[in-house]
Amino acid sequence: MVLVTRKGHFCAAHRLYNPAWSDEKNDRVFGKCNNPHGHGHNYTVEVTVAGDPPADSGMVIDLKVLADIIERELIERVDHKNLNVDVEFMRGVIPTAENIAIGFWKILAPRITEGKLHAIRLYESENNIVEYRGA
Amino acid sequence: MVLVTRKGHFCAAHRLYNPAWSDEKNDRVFGKCNNPHGHGHNYTVEVTVAGDPPADSGMVIDLKVLADIIERELIERVDHKNLNVDVEFMRGVIPTAENIAIGFWKILAPRITEGKLHAIRLYESENNIVEYRGA
Amino acid sequence: MVLVTRKGHFCAAHRLYNPAWSDEKNDRVFGKCNNPHGHGHNYTVEVTVAGDPPADSGMVIDLKVLADIIERELIERVDHKNLNVDVEFMRGVIPTAENIAIGFWKILAPRITEGKLHAIRLYESENNIVEYRGA
Amino acid sequence: MVLVTRKGHFCAAHRLYNPAWSDEKNDRVFGKCNNPHGHGHNYTVEVTVAGDPPADSGMVIDLKVLADIIERELIERVDHKNLNVDVEFMRGVIPTAENIAIGFWKILAPRITEGKLHAIRLYESENNIVEYRGA
Amino acid sequence: MVLVTRKGHFCAAHRLYNPAWSDEKNDRVFGKCNNPHGHGHNYTVEVTVAGDPPADSGMVIDLKVLADIIERELIERVDHKNLNVDVEFMRGVIPTAENIAIGFWKILAPRITEGKLHAIRLYESENNIVEYRGA
Amino acid sequence: MVLVTRKGHFCAAHRLYNPAWSDEKNDRVFGKCNNPHGHGHNYTVEVTVAGDPPADSGMVIDLKVLADIIERELIERVDHKNLNVDVEFMRGVIPTAENIAIGFWKILAPRITEGKLHAIRLYESENNIVEYRGA
Repeated sequence: MVLVTRKGHFCAAHRLYNPAWSDEKNDRVFGKCNNPHGHGHNYTVEVTVAGDPPADSGMVIDLKVLADIIERELIERVDHKNLNVDVEFMRGVIPTAENIAIGFWKILAPRITEGKLHAIRLYESENNIVEYRGA
Repeated sequence: MVLVTRKGHFCAAHRLYNPAWSDEKNDRVFGKCNNPHGHGHNYTVEVTVAGDPPADSGMVIDLKVLADIIERELIERVDHKNLNVDVEFMRGVIPTAENIAIGFWKILAPRITEGKLHAIRLYESENNIVEYRGA
Repeated sequence: MVLVTRKGHFCAAHRLYNPAWSDEKNDRVFGKCNNPHGHGHNYTVEVTVAGDPPADSGMVIDLKVLADIIERELIERVDHKNLNVDVEFMRGVIPTAENIAIGFWKILAPRITEGKLHAIRLYESENNIVEYRGA
Repeated sequence: MVLVTRKGHFCAAHRLYNPAWSDEKNDRVFGKCNNPHGHGHNYTVEVTVAGDPPADSGMVIDLKVLADIIERELIERVDHKNLNVDVEFMRGVIPTAENIAIGFWKILAPRITEGKLHAIRLYESENNIVEYRGA
Repeated sequence: MVLVTRKGHFCAAHRLYNPAWSDEKNDRVFGKCNNPHGHGHNYTVEVTVAGDPPADSGMVIDLKVLADIIERELIERVDHKNLNVDVEFMRGVIPTAENIAIGFWKILAPRITEGKLHAIRLYESENNIVEYRGA
Repeated sequence: MVLVTRKGHFCAAHRLYNPAWSDEKNDRVFGKCNNPHGHGHNYTVEVTVAGDPPADSGMVIDLKVLADIIERELIERVDHKNLNVDVEFMRGVIPTAENIAIGFWKILAPRITEGKLHAIRLYESENNIVEYRGA
């Protein structure tokens, strides 16, 4: 088995805020990330697919095909967007890096048909990284 | 003369939008950056100071002092903020990388008293960089 | 389960040297790393915590809390220090990257109470990396 | 158990092309990577070795020794080479990143005698990464 | 005046070889870079444009427009190509990083009409960089 | 004129300390960098040479030659060394990044005979950078 990883990039605004909580609790839990007018990040997503490369192509999955899937299914949904307002698959969840990664997994898992989706790794910044490998 | 550079990091939301223009012109000029609910970036700022290191300290400017100035004067004003709404020194200007760099210069130039402010370099993303060296 | 990773940075001096060995054997095994007056590195540590993000916060562990733990428990013990002389938890062990990572694990494992410590990854340089996931 | 990783770098030309296929199928499957006169990359390889650091050296494997093995057994075979023409161990396979990583594994696995080879990670570019952990 | 920089990326094969020289002299001057079947790189190009941002747009040049020019005029000419064979503007010159940068300058200088082309910086690898600012 | 830059890497220990000052003043000026047993860094040096590439070689200076000069004249003098004790050309100066860069310039300027030494850029860490371009 070989793991094949392709990166994608997007930038988005978000605010960490739970409407079921008081303002005071939102501030205590989310701190600066609860700024009412939002803040934002340059996100990097790494999509890893596992499989055996067939002898005739030598590729687990064509990386250009994988790049196109990432662009069309993930990046176009979130790039230059506000994750609290503009993104269908994030409705009703707090837009933490954890929840974005889980959302990405749910979108991609059924769409990866050469090989098998293995991991979604999301960099919210150089120092903050999350990874999800399915339920 | 030696150039000394210190980096700082912040994340912020912004929207490129000129209220004096029609929606149609804002869209044509600013494209995806004109998304009404904003988007955001992890910004990196590089502050460069020029001077001659005195023999007794060997330092143009103490990098910890420079780091503190950057933190207090720049990062605290913009980190986890919305650049269109939350930031005093950006009022009335479009929050492009160019204008943020010019704003940073105006704040820092009078506050650098060991050595002399030489350049502000601002990375809006890995691929987009601006630099300002004063009027 | 989601893996959440936060980075920290420190710089330190060290010397690879086993006092139970002859000078000749120390030289043969540790080479340049056995320079008597030491050398040093900018280290990067990645701390990974595993857990399930609760629905109300969406976070395995608050990354600011994790950052504070890393700063207080790890960075303050080793930053701008000599690892052979100044650091309590390294007494009696050779200050290789392997042993620093194991030492960090022992300090952090009992202190991570949201989620569970999953891995300590330590970059001694761009090209040299170690990872420890517990005994 | 501790994982120890050392990086190596090489640059090489290659062309993705299956001589058993028609030109049309090669173009459809490999796209731009099938350019007849080739293209090339700066590759980075990460070699990971697993083991327990003995108390007297504190090292799973001496990283200088590992660096020398990587240089002699991997880099010298592929650096500044054309992977379709100049490299013995790639004969008869399509020079995809997957197949280079598998080839590297076969060369290194028997030569790592302190610790045990755990993974070969190959970066074909910043955005394209493969990893192989043995059959 | 503000400097605005946008990066582009391409991968290509090349061989350093002067047909007017003997094989022996080519080997002595170009060493491994003279491998007959070529080698290759992931190149990064940084294009810097200088100008004053107008008050109404706040942009020296729209970075999306600059990105499109770089893609169309530079990247499409060289990406996944062999620089000795496939690239019109490199005919008759040795494909060193210096000559690629000069060639890029000649193509771009007349096509930058918002602001003025200031510099072409080309990374042949992480460690090898050239910069050209015009004759 | 083309600028050609080559990077080199070394790791070293140092202590910022002026023996003519009281301990109290050393602490006030140099802070943590005055730790008596030292600390250390992974340094990166960028050496930039300016010149016109001759038509027959296309190179301002052969980058392998420049790499060898950097290795022999700079890296071997400082790598895995203590900059306060082990390095001849640093005697009598405080081992700040500024002074290391100036010392490197003095060593290299007379030894660059293809093209002309243009700049020494020294990264003490990811966030601290100095540059010297001669007196």
